[in-house]
Amino acid sequence: MARTLITELSSHVGERVTIRGWAQAVRDQKKVQFVVVRDESGLAQAVLGKDDPPTELNEQITSLHVESAVTLTGTVVADERVKLGGVELQLESVEVDSPAEPEVPIAVDSALDKRIDWRYLDLRRPDRRLIFEVQSTVEHAMRDYWSKEGFIEIHTPKLMGSASESGAELFKVEYFERQAYLAQSPQFYKQMAMAAGFGKVFEIGPVFRANPSFTSRHDTEFTSVDVELAWIDSHEDVMRFEEAWLAHVLGVVKDVFGGGIEKTFDTEVIVPALPFPRVTLEQAKEMLREAGHESVPGPGHDLDPPSERALSAIVKERSGHEFTFVTDYPTIRV
Amino acid sequence: MARTLITELSSHVGERVTIRGWAQAVRDQKKVQFVVVRDESGLAQAVLGKDDPPTELNEQITSLHVESAVTLTGTVVADERVKLGGVELQLESVEVDSPAEPEVPIAVDSALDKRIDWRYLDLRRPDRRLIFEVQSTVEHAMRDYWSKEGFIEIHTPKLMGSASESGAELFKVEYFERQAYLAQSPQFYKQMAMAAGFGKVFEIGPVFRANPSFTSRHDTEFTSVDVELAWIDSHEDVMRFEEAWLAHVLGVVKDVFGGGIEKTFDTEVIVPALPFPRVTLEQAKEMLREAGHESVPGPGHDLDPPSERALSAIVKERSGHEFTFVTDYPTIRV
Repeated sequence: MARTLITELSSHVGERVTIRGWAQAVRDQKKVQFVVVRDESGLAQAVLGKDDPPTELNEQITSLHVESAVTLTGTVVADERVKLGGVELQLESVEVDSPAEPEVPIAVDSALDKRIDWRYLDLRRPDRRLIFEVQSTVEHAMRDYWSKEGFIEIHTPKLMGSASESGAELFKVEYFERQAYLAQSPQFYKQMAMAAGFGKVFEIGPVFRANPSFTSRHDTEFTSVDVELAWIDSHEDVMRFEEAWLAHVLGVVKDVFGGGIEKTFDTEVIVPALPFPRVTLEQAKEMLREAGHESVPGPGHDLDPPSERALSAIVKERSGHEFTFVTDYPTIRV
Repeated sequence: MARTLITELSSHVGERVTIRGWAQAVRDQKKVQFVVVRDESGLAQAVLGKDDPPTELNEQITSLHVESAVTLTGTVVADERVKLGGVELQLESVEVDSPAEPEVPIAVDSALDKRIDWRYLDLRRPDRRLIFEVQSTVEHAMRDYWSKEGFIEIHTPKLMGSASESGAELFKVEYFERQAYLAQSPQFYKQMAMAAGFGKVFEIGPVFRANPSFTSRHDTEFTSVDVELAWIDSHEDVMRFEEAWLAHVLGVVKDVFGGGIEKTFDTEVIVPALPFPRVTLEQAKEMLREAGHESVPGPGHDLDPPSERALSAIVKERSGHEFTFVTDYPTIRV
């Protein structure tokens, strides 16, 4: 029978349906058995009376391990007492598509390295999948915005024949009898696209940096979001684009996942008001000094992450704004 | 002044505007001068009367090299005789943002290697940019379809710690003191996502294959479109998904670029009728033999590209269908 998503069960009351997912919990009581099933859309409860002696179906449920992949068929009945959507499945048959081991090897609070060892089990938790769902939505909202603004999506080469940038932090690849390098950014190609008259381009793709650093702001491989605009008058045009684009994307995330993010991560998705405040680097340092921030970076130095966080807090307190542009960086390094 | 796109000129008749793009042609006649300008939206003509002696502006036009980046300001006037959109710009000022060399180093019919050497000039031709515009539209249409169907977009790692597949055709990367490999496909991660209960995922991204082949069907790096569906009953579900998805994408391409593709490449975009015919591999070979196709692949062998082309022609002639699924491949290689 065609699969019904759990989120759609309430519109199939009285019907015989098949749901497919993972056995999240099995409650094997004296007179009744419950299986809580999870699919990508939600959770549902299946219920089965227990006979004496138990039927074959009763015994299937008794021996079912949680996290097994299961196909359950039964009739949807409405019952207000059922917390999971006010409906449950009166079970008629169970098929174990893939049985789980008796013990799930990770728990909610397992250490990160253990979670990563069992990544496919870790990601079965809806709160962890939510991150990927939000990421998907963010990307789609970004692309919708770009598409309406006439941007062209490009896919630039990741294998390069020569070291186009400084040469530092480049990964070397054995390319047949020669040497190739992994691209550190699509910058060069984006600029070529501007010289080609493409006007506006973007790329979302992997970049590679042989950076042995261990901070949370560095990685040897990450997905980079790159945008390039031609025919601008100044960085003001770029900032106007960026703030409108970010506000659009965050607006979509709030619409689609605002409730889920609040519930799961206790974080409110804030759609920023436009325009963002503009603060010069010197003004920013002055604001930090006034606020008593320790170790304000000296002349010619960029803001470090603690200074950036402190500046954001100051701007938010003064104006309510969540985002700030820091402008007028010196053109020469001291 | 804010830039006006050439495609919007006809709605600014009587107004003073600035257009920015590339000087495609300069016609310096005795009494009048014309500059044809190209931006990413189209072509427009700017016109200037020639004084005796010539004004400074006249001399600027006389010395302007084609393919220079220019900013032109003037008043838009309607003139039915003007082939380029029925409007022209009465020129008031010219700014050369980036002057071109006196000679453009490539022509329309230059050899491919020379075109690639001057790729940013080659891509200035609207027929070449059209390919990228269509690709952008294809991707956006694919993602729209996936998004509505509840797919999650993933970005899987391209650097791998060990050779997950056969080991053949893998590029090796020097990863600090160790060895890494470039991913040949996201297959492994897509399957992990299914085991994680993601249900439906896709990825558009680069894959790397150390394949020394020189056919048009092999490349060491290409952009791969990957889709994975869980909870299917059989390959029939996959085919139903694929045909509906392709028809959607081609429908969007026809809507947006059908006219441009026909005009530029003399090719009609055909939106396939559903369902596509299903032909088993054995039936396909029988059809090829009946049609007198030379060198039909033997038992256990896949269709080669000439056989695939011949089969498509036969199916199209018999049923009018542009696409065919070839099914029931043998599970053991002979």
